[in-house]
Amino acid sequence: MRQDKRPEVDLILSGRYLVVNSQDVTEQENISIAVAKGRIAEIGPNLAAKYPQAECLSHAHGLIMPGLINSHTHAAMSCFRGLADDLPLMEWLQGHIFPREAQLTSEIVYHSTLLSLCEMIRSGTTAFNDMYLFAQDVARATAESGMRAWLGEVLYDFPSPNYGELENGFLYSEELFERYGASELITVTVNPHSVYTCSPALLERLAVQAEEKDALYHIHLAENQDEVMTCRERYGCSPVQHLENLGLLNERVVAAHGVMVSEEEVTLLAERKVKIAHCPESNMKLASGAAPVPALLEQGITVGLGTDGSASNNDLDLFGEMNSAAKMHKVVQMDPTVMNAAATLHTATQGGAALLGAGAAIGSLAVGRKADLIMLDMDQPHLTPLYNPLSHLVYAAGGSDVIHSVINGKVVMRDRQLTTLDETAIITEMKRIGEMVRRIG
Amino acid sequence: MRQDKRPEVDLILSGRYLVVNSQDVTEQENISIAVAKGRIAEIGPNLAAKYPQAECLSHAHGLIMPGLINSHTHAAMSCFRGLADDLPLMEWLQGHIFPREAQLTSEIVYHSTLLSLCEMIRSGTTAFNDMYLFAQDVARATAESGMRAWLGEVLYDFPSPNYGELENGFLYSEELFERYGASELITVTVNPHSVYTCSPALLERLAVQAEEKDALYHIHLAENQDEVMTCRERYGCSPVQHLENLGLLNERVVAAHGVMVSEEEVTLLAERKVKIAHCPESNMKLASGAAPVPALLEQGITVGLGTDGSASNNDLDLFGEMNSAAKMHKVVQMDPTVMNAAATLHTATQGGAALLGAGAAIGSLAVGRKADLIMLDMDQPHLTPLYNPLSHLVYAAGGSDVIHSVINGKVVMRDRQLTTLDETAIITEMKRIGEMVRRIG
Repeated sequence: MRQDKRPEVDLILSGRYLVVNSQDVTEQENISIAVAKGRIAEIGPNLAAKYPQAECLSHAHGLIMPGLINSHTHAAMSCFRGLADDLPLMEWLQGHIFPREAQLTSEIVYHSTLLSLCEMIRSGTTAFNDMYLFAQDVARATAESGMRAWLGEVLYDFPSPNYGELENGFLYSEELFERYGASELITVTVNPHSVYTCSPALLERLAVQAEEKDALYHIHLAENQDEVMTCRERYGCSPVQHLENLGLLNERVVAAHGVMVSEEEVTLLAERKVKIAHCPESNMKLASGAAPVPALLEQGITVGLGTDGSASNNDLDLFGEMNSAAKMHKVVQMDPTVMNAAATLHTATQGGAALLGAGAAIGSLAVGRKADLIMLDMDQPHLTPLYNPLSHLVYAAGGSDVIHSVINGKVVMRDRQLTTLDETAIITEMKRIGEMVRRIG
Repeated sequence: MRQDKRPEVDLILSGRYLVVNSQDVTEQENISIAVAKGRIAEIGPNLAAKYPQAECLSHAHGLIMPGLINSHTHAAMSCFRGLADDLPLMEWLQGHIFPREAQLTSEIVYHSTLLSLCEMIRSGTTAFNDMYLFAQDVARATAESGMRAWLGEVLYDFPSPNYGELENGFLYSEELFERYGASELITVTVNPHSVYTCSPALLERLAVQAEEKDALYHIHLAENQDEVMTCRERYGCSPVQHLENLGLLNERVVAAHGVMVSEEEVTLLAERKVKIAHCPESNMKLASGAAPVPALLEQGITVGLGTDGSASNNDLDLFGEMNSAAKMHKVVQMDPTVMNAAATLHTATQGGAALLGAGAAIGSLAVGRKADLIMLDMDQPHLTPLYNPLSHLVYAAGGSDVIHSVINGKVVMRDRQLTTLDETAIITEMKRIGEMVRRIG
């Protein structure tokens, strides 16, 4: 007998540990979350007994937490994963990535995005912020998966393999905004590639578009020394100062990387409420440097965690990314207390949510918030004993420990089986595409 | 009908990719390895058909490779995993680790080692080099697991919770040598803790013991700045120079960490044929610094890869460790070409084997070598496409991708199920021990 005042709970997650956010962790038998209409309806013990009609995803040693948020990626770059590594940046880009990107197609991007969606769901990601070519195909794949995403078409001054001349890029983006304007899961963003590939006029025009559409302005910024040198040569100032001079630093800006940022620029970014998507593994692998994340956090800047594309990582596992983030800053600063487990988990959850302007909806658990939830199996050798769940999430767990995943109230992975995507077919197709991509070289 | 001239093959591994060593990778359908009497008997395609009587561990997209070798760990420290993190080194050691180590017992060490053996086997490790207290219990657990190990009792000037006064430590070690002198899988080593916990007299006496027993001399060396300062205060020189002054640097020495090593000392270590166990994740997490591994390798020094104990890592997954090693050196040196995938895999396989003086037996695949083998399932989203197996092993794979593991010809994990250890019972026991350890605080 359903009681009328109760919400129509259709899903329960029940476990032993509950990570509400990076500061609030509970251990209790059968601690559970009830989901109704895509949102968290109730948090408490033994909810499966209270709502017997609901499906129950349960594990005696399960840890329930907010799904992880990937603040910067290029999902479709999975088609280049492991194609070329350990090379100087320019050789990697110009000798391997750019020639192949020039021949990308709508179908390659679609299937490569599907592959990355499989990987992201499997490793506990429930939302991602994507910048790439053929963004309508990124959106099409994402919609099929049930994943939450912020995404947009990347624009730059040279012709694109997708839209050709720049003017068409604006039309293409316009279509994207129209098609997904009413979507619950997909939010369209404005994506200038960078200060070294976009003229000041293009950067400004896209800022106007972001303002008009009330959209995020997602840009690569201050990623490495080459970018700084190019910017200084052309404009006589650093990338951050260049955007400031153009009047483009504001709370819409999601700056990916933010590695080459001076102390004064940290203060400036804080004043302008710019958000930083921190990508430590990509920054390490490409030898870009270490973003001054402890200083950014100290100044109150919103920092999310991103994997960047899997061509420069080479995976999309945010658990591994947290591990790397926490450790990289300790050794770079020679201080074992920086980027502690809670601060690191924050970047991959609440930080990411705030960066996307979605802090009230996702990134932490509370009644009324979106049901973007994952459960980990903590009953494993590498997670035993368990003194502090936050420590294990950052320093010992991996994406493969995630057993269930729920996005917007819908189960997208149950007992390690994807429910929305045909993984076998996707892998088979991507092997074929891999052979094609290899031959382009 | 078994033909007489053929070896008595009792096990076949069959897959699609074969990593013979870090330089030699083959792709071929049904590439297989036949195992007889604990050794590799044959390498070639379709051996399952040739030896139908043998058990066959097969995967259409399997990658067969040498088992990984952990060059420096303290397996039993898994009982402290995640107990305390993100603290200054001395506060961590003196406030959390030392008080608990002082109350360790034979049983805690035994069960904690069993737990780590589960984790190591699950993540593809087939040999490890251990230094800890209650080494007979480490050995007892190891023998039950079927794992290959080098291990010894750690000695230092102060009383041990195991053997009490130092003199008893020598008796205890003597027993260890006697008990395992004839063991095929366990090799006993001599373990002075460090230059800051062992007097010159103790360091020298243990060197004599190593010489007499023809054993490795496994010591923490030049781990961090504190060690260097203490050594300078006491002896007026660096840790490496201190051992040199005592005449103790030679080819028996396995030096864990080797972070604080000057350019001249790199040359000295090379001349003295000292081996280095590199532990990047522990060095990052404790903010010890980055060992000059590219320089060590350039000078021809043998470098193995180690996880250190899981109290400072916080796991024993050598796949993650490879990923961190390759990336850390790139960002520290601001050069994306250092520690490429092959060089990194070398440290976890052939480098480790050479460090242990077992380069002719393990660490790479060849007929006649010990059958220490693992197979990974490469048919997964995060390992697709597959352009270069070495890249995936270092940058994309994780320990959880290992599906089968064979040590000395014996299957220790089949389809992710451990065959020699009762994982459920071990986890249950370790939860109880965890509660005990927590209360000691």
